[in-house]
Amino acid sequence: MPLILVTNDDGIHASGIEVLTDIARQFGKTVVIAPAEGQSGMSHAITVKFPLRIKKISEEKDLTLYSCTGTPVDGVKLALAQLLDQEPDLIISGINHGSNSSSSVVYSGTMGAAIEGCINSIPAIGFSLLDHSATADFEASRPYVKRIIEMVLENGLPQGVCLNVNIPAVPKQEIKGMKVCRQNRGIWREEFDKRMDPRSQEYYWLTGEFYDLEPESADTDQWALLNNYVSVVPVQPDMTAYKFLDTLKSWDFSNNV
Amino acid sequence: MPLILVTNDDGIHASGIEVLTDIARQFGKTVVIAPAEGQSGMSHAITVKFPLRIKKISEEKDLTLYSCTGTPVDGVKLALAQLLDQEPDLIISGINHGSNSSSSVVYSGTMGAAIEGCINSIPAIGFSLLDHSATADFEASRPYVKRIIEMVLENGLPQGVCLNVNIPAVPKQEIKGMKVCRQNRGIWREEFDKRMDPRSQEYYWLTGEFYDLEPESADTDQWALLNNYVSVVPVQPDMTAYKFLDTLKSWDFSNNV
Repeated sequence: MPLILVTNDDGIHASGIEVLTDIARQFGKTVVIAPAEGQSGMSHAITVKFPLRIKKISEEKDLTLYSCTGTPVDGVKLALAQLLDQEPDLIISGINHGSNSSSSVVYSGTMGAAIEGCINSIPAIGFSLLDHSATADFEASRPYVKRIIEMVLENGLPQGVCLNVNIPAVPKQEIKGMKVCRQNRGIWREEFDKRMDPRSQEYYWLTGEFYDLEPESADTDQWALLNNYVSVVPVQPDMTAYKFLDTLKSWDFSNNV
Repeated sequence: MPLILVTNDDGIHASGIEVLTDIARQFGKTVVIAPAEGQSGMSHAITVKFPLRIKKISEEKDLTLYSCTGTPVDGVKLALAQLLDQEPDLIISGINHGSNSSSSVVYSGTMGAAIEGCINSIPAIGFSLLDHSATADFEASRPYVKRIIEMVLENGLPQGVCLNVNIPAVPKQEIKGMKVCRQNRGIWREEFDKRMDPRSQEYYWLTGEFYDLEPESADTDQWALLNNYVSVVPVQPDMTAYKFLDTLKSWDFSNNV
């Protein structure tokens, strides 16, 4: 019976992690560790300046729930080093309330947790639904999440690869299926909301709008989602730009040094 | 005269950013924005739950210094959206007190800032010295930092690529030169330091030790640094695991969905 570690970045009280935990239990013994509070946008951050705390929320047959302070990656590290007697067979993160497609994979705490599993050679998947609201409906996501977990438990994943799965927020019958794709090239253009506090000091709220820089490319996650497919992107923490290695090697680094 | 944006994750008062600013000024008009406090390990995190503040520290001919609350990536976003009249020609981050080689690139706030530049199609470089101490000696680093900046201003970098530069903490005469390499496969194994607070509640400090998972490979940044080379790794925010794409496409996603 596989051991499955469930986590997220929206916090232990989010409905997305409740659905994911429910699905995980169909496959094996499940341990949940999630941030006590929302940790959206925390990427792969770790907490080095503050101590961390763990709280056991509940324990029943084959399901234990913990919350922790710190980031999603802290939570995975705490689970692996402190809570689990054995290495999990799978780490699943989400279901995130909101998209983690395109370059959002880099900012995402949901994917941070999955990538942390991957660095530790544990198969890992991040799931996200394209609906930010706290009351998002995850029902249409269930069969896709279940099938992907099933396949990863069956086939495994290569060392150094995890999956980034995004699900369009449309009714079940409109989802066209799953599509394996690459990470879209897109950016968040920021327009900070500048305000004045009651003591006449300026402050800024981060806001931004997403721009797809390659809307014509049909092999990206962004395209898949716009066309009502569930996007599945294999993700690696090896960030080396291999295609540029040889050119860079030809640069004259020694001059004047 | 190029416009150079300087940032870091150790904060505006770190000596590493002072050295980097000093070098930047030899090349062009320099704007510094750095976290008011240390933000090590913040990766590519952005601040979504709290407002951000900017403080102008000083302004003189061709050099303006700002500190900000939030993460290194927040700082870059604030600079691009709020502080600069034109896009910078280069973003440099560091010089970090401590290594950002191997998988540390994923956890690093220094590299988070550089990668943010890269996502915005601005040439960017992260610099790190392998010495964690606040009083680290950056003198031997100077000619290498200078040469790399010079070359990037001259040659540019391809869209979607930035550089991760790490410098061994050895005397100048022991540095063998620069070596272009790939990101080493290594992990931080955590051994949390578990303590009891005065109210008998447990808490954990994150500690860890680095393990090189491929010490025999001579083409990695880890190897270069151990052998007293300055390592230069081209880094890309496209995290797609391209080598696994075709295999993943052959999986039977439609079954039972």
